[in-house]
Amino acid sequence: MTEHTHQTAPTQFVEANGIRFAYRRFGKASGAPLVFNQHFRGTMDYWDPAVTDGLAKNREVILFDNAGVSSTSGRVPTTMQEMGANAIAFIKALGPAKVDALGFSIGGMVAQEIAAQAPDLVRRLILVGTGPRGADMSTSKSAEIFAGAYDPPEHLWLAVHFSPSPSGRAAGLAFLKRKLLRKDRDPEVSDEAAAAQREAITKYYAPAAGALNYLKEIRQPTLIVQGSNDVIVPTVNSYILQQNLPNAELIVYPDANHGSFYQYPELFVSDADQFLSSTLQERDANLKSSERLPFPSIVSATGV
Amino acid sequence: MTEHTHQTAPTQFVEANGIRFAYRRFGKASGAPLVFNQHFRGTMDYWDPAVTDGLAKNREVILFDNAGVSSTSGRVPTTMQEMGANAIAFIKALGPAKVDALGFSIGGMVAQEIAAQAPDLVRRLILVGTGPRGADMSTSKSAEIFAGAYDPPEHLWLAVHFSPSPSGRAAGLAFLKRKLLRKDRDPEVSDEAAAAQREAITKYYAPAAGALNYLKEIRQPTLIVQGSNDVIVPTVNSYILQQNLPNAELIVYPDANHGSFYQYPELFVSDADQFLSSTLQERDANLKSSERLPFPSIVSATGV
Repeated sequence: MTEHTHQTAPTQFVEANGIRFAYRRFGKASGAPLVFNQHFRGTMDYWDPAVTDGLAKNREVILFDNAGVSSTSGRVPTTMQEMGANAIAFIKALGPAKVDALGFSIGGMVAQEIAAQAPDLVRRLILVGTGPRGADMSTSKSAEIFAGAYDPPEHLWLAVHFSPSPSGRAAGLAFLKRKLLRKDRDPEVSDEAAAAQREAITKYYAPAAGALNYLKEIRQPTLIVQGSNDVIVPTVNSYILQQNLPNAELIVYPDANHGSFYQYPELFVSDADQFLSSTLQERDANLKSSERLPFPSIVSATGV
Repeated sequence: MTEHTHQTAPTQFVEANGIRFAYRRFGKASGAPLVFNQHFRGTMDYWDPAVTDGLAKNREVILFDNAGVSSTSGRVPTTMQEMGANAIAFIKALGPAKVDALGFSIGGMVAQEIAAQAPDLVRRLILVGTGPRGADMSTSKSAEIFAGAYDPPEHLWLAVHFSPSPSGRAAGLAFLKRKLLRKDRDPEVSDEAAAAQREAITKYYAPAAGALNYLKEIRQPTLIVQGSNDVIVPTVNSYILQQNLPNAELIVYPDANHGSFYQYPELFVSDADQFLSSTLQERDANLKSSERLPFPSIVSATGV
């Protein structure tokens, strides 16, 4: 494919659904490319180069701005469902028959929507720091953290993504350095776009009967990655995702917050690589085993 | 060290605490050996050779029978604390200055005791299908499963260890084949010994105020491995362990039961190998960061 990296991949454009989508692609062409779905207020420049370049060693990586975000035209819709539909239109316009989808925070909600709405388009899913419809946000500190003022302002992302331990703090400062290396940057997300994203989040986690039912239909092998103490989307939501998705593995990293994969980028790249490139039969066996056997083998019970 | 494997390693004996401990050791000598702590009613022959031989490729593996179990003399104590003390005596009699400890089910409870009582003896911990003191056993089906009759009797372990899906069932039958290969077998656990183990389990999960406090003192890097639906020690206990241990990573495998690591032996060996051999700074950084910083960087809050 290209010799490009996170730092050098040019911003390109493709039109779909009447929207002009901005994207960048780089890495080794082979099999399904990995499409990154970004978090609240994030642009293509908000991904950690250690993660994107790390994963690009073994596959093509595609970053994009969804509708209304940064360099992409259109408006940010106020539901995750519509964001998912826009992402699907973007992927189809680009052309790959199948992709792997990684989503972080609201990007993880969008990635679930992509898999739910276009199951044949998605091979495997990686969901980082996210939750299901009807997510339990009762312990989230998101509102107070995003309402805070920081000096320098970039330190907002230390509070959002990193644990307050010395090693978490050090990892956060290293992340900010990596993140700010690229000079020709995507424009920041507008307040109007952020407000629409916020409305979509509020709708998404509104309690509703049967809110989790859709998860049973997402049968792709899924890797869920979470920090031990996510103050934005509380950690328990990843446990709930794992318990309700038919074929999901959960990894919770120690001493980590919302951006656990930026705190341990080498470890995450290794885990994600293993998951995405795994040819272990067992990874896909579950896809075929929708039919459950009755609980096995007790031929008579002698009491308890 | 030796050319021995799970199938050929001779049973040896060492005396400590007035107990004659039976053990087997094999694998590549290098750094801390990995000591396996066995589950309820299990002997040295109950481990999955795919797991023990898999891990023995990069380190020495030590299997043993704790006091009163199978080939080891003495009586099974009725508390995990005493089982842990016996395991420590065994390890010290063998001589390594530091070990890694893997524990499965009640073996995981014993491994926690080893780390709690002899923190300097343990480098890293792997806890599979287990729980903390005061574990939530409310949804456990252990009593009815162990009280059942099975044809053939070995199929008890399908119900205990494997998921009822077709792939779980197939993995279980393959495990039983591997497990029964060795001919000079450790004697089965006596009913008296099993009764003492059962009493220890019941005491262990009795609710008690502050039951989880001891976990804060286990600062070793810990890998917790669990199946998505453990019917013996309910899965949520691994989540609770992760949330309360200072430096623990949790992996939950999909479509898996109590013996998740026997259902995905290659995947587990790969994950455990990565964990045990990791030289990532971050693995050990947390050990040094007992001092938490105040929540970072909000210099003023503008309200929510």
